[in-house]
Amino acid sequence: MNIELNRGSRIPLARQIKQAIADRILSGYFKKGARLPSVRKLAQSLRVSPVTVIHALDLLETKGLVKRIHGKGTFVYEDENESETEQTEEPTPFPVSDYLHRSQHWYFHQRESEINFSLCAVHPELLPASDLAQSIRQLAMKDPEVLVQYGEIQGDLELRRTMAKNLAREHLALSPQEVLVTNGAQQGIDLVARSFIGPGDLVVTEEPTYTAAIDAFRSRGANLLTVPMDEEGIRIDKLTALLDTYKPKLIYTIPSFQNPTGNVMSAKRRRELFDLARHTNCLILEDDPWSEIFFDKAPPPPIKSLDQSGHVIYLKGISKMLSPGCRVGFLTASGTVLHRLVAAKTHADLGNPLLNQKVILPLLQPENLSSLLKQLRTVLKKRRDTALRLLRHYAPPQIQWTIPQGGLNLWISLPERIRANSLLQEAEKRRISFLPGSSCYPGDPEWNHLRISFSYVDEGQLKEGIQKLCSILSAYLASAESRKGETPLF
Amino acid sequence: MNIELNRGSRIPLARQIKQAIADRILSGYFKKGARLPSVRKLAQSLRVSPVTVIHALDLLETKGLVKRIHGKGTFVYEDENESETEQTEEPTPFPVSDYLHRSQHWYFHQRESEINFSLCAVHPELLPASDLAQSIRQLAMKDPEVLVQYGEIQGDLELRRTMAKNLAREHLALSPQEVLVTNGAQQGIDLVARSFIGPGDLVVTEEPTYTAAIDAFRSRGANLLTVPMDEEGIRIDKLTALLDTYKPKLIYTIPSFQNPTGNVMSAKRRRELFDLARHTNCLILEDDPWSEIFFDKAPPPPIKSLDQSGHVIYLKGISKMLSPGCRVGFLTASGTVLHRLVAAKTHADLGNPLLNQKVILPLLQPENLSSLLKQLRTVLKKRRDTALRLLRHYAPPQIQWTIPQGGLNLWISLPERIRANSLLQEAEKRRISFLPGSSCYPGDPEWNHLRISFSYVDEGQLKEGIQKLCSILSAYLASAESRKGETPLF
Repeated sequence: MNIELNRGSRIPLARQIKQAIADRILSGYFKKGARLPSVRKLAQSLRVSPVTVIHALDLLETKGLVKRIHGKGTFVYEDENESETEQTEEPTPFPVSDYLHRSQHWYFHQRESEINFSLCAVHPELLPASDLAQSIRQLAMKDPEVLVQYGEIQGDLELRRTMAKNLAREHLALSPQEVLVTNGAQQGIDLVARSFIGPGDLVVTEEPTYTAAIDAFRSRGANLLTVPMDEEGIRIDKLTALLDTYKPKLIYTIPSFQNPTGNVMSAKRRRELFDLARHTNCLILEDDPWSEIFFDKAPPPPIKSLDQSGHVIYLKGISKMLSPGCRVGFLTASGTVLHRLVAAKTHADLGNPLLNQKVILPLLQPENLSSLLKQLRTVLKKRRDTALRLLRHYAPPQIQWTIPQGGLNLWISLPERIRANSLLQEAEKRRISFLPGSSCYPGDPEWNHLRISFSYVDEGQLKEGIQKLCSILSAYLASAESRKGETPLF
Repeated sequence: MNIELNRGSRIPLARQIKQAIADRILSGYFKKGARLPSVRKLAQSLRVSPVTVIHALDLLETKGLVKRIHGKGTFVYEDENESETEQTEEPTPFPVSDYLHRSQHWYFHQRESEINFSLCAVHPELLPASDLAQSIRQLAMKDPEVLVQYGEIQGDLELRRTMAKNLAREHLALSPQEVLVTNGAQQGIDLVARSFIGPGDLVVTEEPTYTAAIDAFRSRGANLLTVPMDEEGIRIDKLTALLDTYKPKLIYTIPSFQNPTGNVMSAKRRRELFDLARHTNCLILEDDPWSEIFFDKAPPPPIKSLDQSGHVIYLKGISKMLSPGCRVGFLTASGTVLHRLVAAKTHADLGNPLLNQKVILPLLQPENLSSLLKQLRTVLKKRRDTALRLLRHYAPPQIQWTIPQGGLNLWISLPERIRANSLLQEAEKRRISFLPGSSCYPGDPEWNHLRISFSYVDEGQLKEGIQKLCSILSAYLASAESRKGETPLF
């Protein structure tokens, strides 16, 4: 365990230490019931005073993440009724310290389920399999040499040109030289993190936000500052106040159908956010995983469309909607920022495989893309409607949920003292999975939310799954009523 | 520019600062002729005394990397005869500090050439294009759903099983659960670096070694310690002496047909190296890019075959030999080390595309793989022989070269005061490229070597290229003779 402290930060050391340990507990790096290193050992290895460590442990105990037993030590919280069998990891028989701070995305995605509400993806049946099969047959016939060639590190030029055309339709006038092809959108986030974020750097995010983005920033040793949203997106007043005290390096935002909440940032807020970033010389990473999946009207143009000065790095995921098997994402940036990202891509993997880039290319031709996305919007709108109808019908009355205007997710809120992480254990017994909302919080989580993706299950699973989930929920709420006073945890 | 100093290190701060600036100069981050920040500014931002900065600049000046002009400042060295036009990078109009410390691989691979001796790859004509085309036709017909599905983060299970079978033939008894699929071997190095190496950690490498590995470790803020080789590989006596003073976290080695030198580590040295790592609880990253490309006899079994305790992470590149368009590599490890690598893969990109893994699968079936590799050995041996014959015939007498017993590279040594980086400028005028050996040194480079890969050019280009290169060399040596006293630089 390497905890990277920033001694120059305005964030107190005890809070930095608390967050580092909390992240590891919630990512399963410390087993439930495991003993943490002693106060003296922690203080020594972190070069802080024992008082600071004790303060950090106090904070963890307040949050219910550890139990301190006098004379025995500090233990990771363990629910005694816990039925879950943890994946047993055979430890390496010698000490290896690592730089993986938080891996909640991995932690919650390595589980198996029959009805998968946790994977935020599109069901294979809804994807253009025959177009793709056609594309690879063509390649095999006409252009098999793509299999024996390296592509450019920055990405295939033809693909970048095509993508630049598509982006022009989204009010983004970019040259192919400003586009970098990544191995899925996740790599885009990671390349930005590794290029510009280091230990103690401050990153601002919406709260809640995308789990794997938090993981990527935290694993660079960043401290995350969060800003709440309202119906117009990120709260500019709160952000402005934050910027009075802190000097963040990057603002990470998902302005359209935010993950996990589905929130849409208004055009006005986009402008205000951009202006703030420009005035404080802060980078924006604008993550756009699915703005074209709107159910009513398209969201406002991307923040990047306002950018003349190079403050915005725009990240476009697209293979999720067309071909997850291809895994292609796009980063756009300019000047030094772009060049550093290409260098980082070189370190990371020397470039995407050429095959996939060529396979997906015909589907990205603007006319094809428009028609494929139109079909997808229609069918996903139906899925969303079904999900909402079922919830209205079966959900216990104490439950609330969002009505997303686009994207793939519903954000469900339980009564405040109910923990979605414990509910997940119940759901998994019946082979249903979802994402516990707590994993979407960079700091102290709210425990009573969950995200379900209505797009990766088929129509039958959607119906069966929501009915089952609602019945599990009703039972769980009733039993929670009887267990009042206890505080079940993650 | 973020320079990460380790104040607890046995490596003096001035040397750490010198290396950080040298890496940036040699990666083209500082333009030739550019002024470095002032001593006061550097001292302030690094929180060190001005004396330490001055010492670092002195070291840079001794190495000829900067010029200090009294009253004006410190400037990156610029060769006045320099004809090279640097790629102009439009700077971002606001300051962005980054964590890219060294990118020499990228720096030397973004140039264009007709006769490419710098790309260490196999010429497309030598690769099994028709088998691959057959494989994708089969996929399109029988299994098009791979295009619309996500694979497992750890990699496709069928592929991991097949690879485990192949590795068993190399004396590696591993289960598919111990195999992690990566986006090419480069990602394997990078995943190890990001998981286990952080600012100030010590990494031992052979000297010279693989440029992009140095880049990856340096960009995690590691300090690199180097050990020379003799005809049996890494010098264990020198390594043992090093371990008396330093406590490295990782030893990075390429035991078979080392890149760039072609050196083969003996079985005895492999055992000694493993024992040293085990006794000091140091990880070994064993990089095996092409051990199956031997021209006479196979190299000794991998170091990993000795490993019962999980100290060795074994990295196998294979798509280079079969299908660069697929970009598939394999990391093998166990216990906590493996789990951390899978978590890192999650952060990096959520897993390889499934398509490529399925396309390459039939070629990796043990019988197919054996026969494909056998063919490749035969044809590459011929290439090597041609290259050696031409060198014997055309090279000026002052030049020396290795006679590699496997792999893809020749390592050529010029007279000591001749700089291969300057020679590259001459070669590029005639559209020939090679890798300047200086990029293979983690610390102070030797300037008089170059690496040429005889595998990526076709037979005609090989002949033309070596003849031309030799004539450029002869002319360059003659003119260097007349310029004696000057010291042309990188």
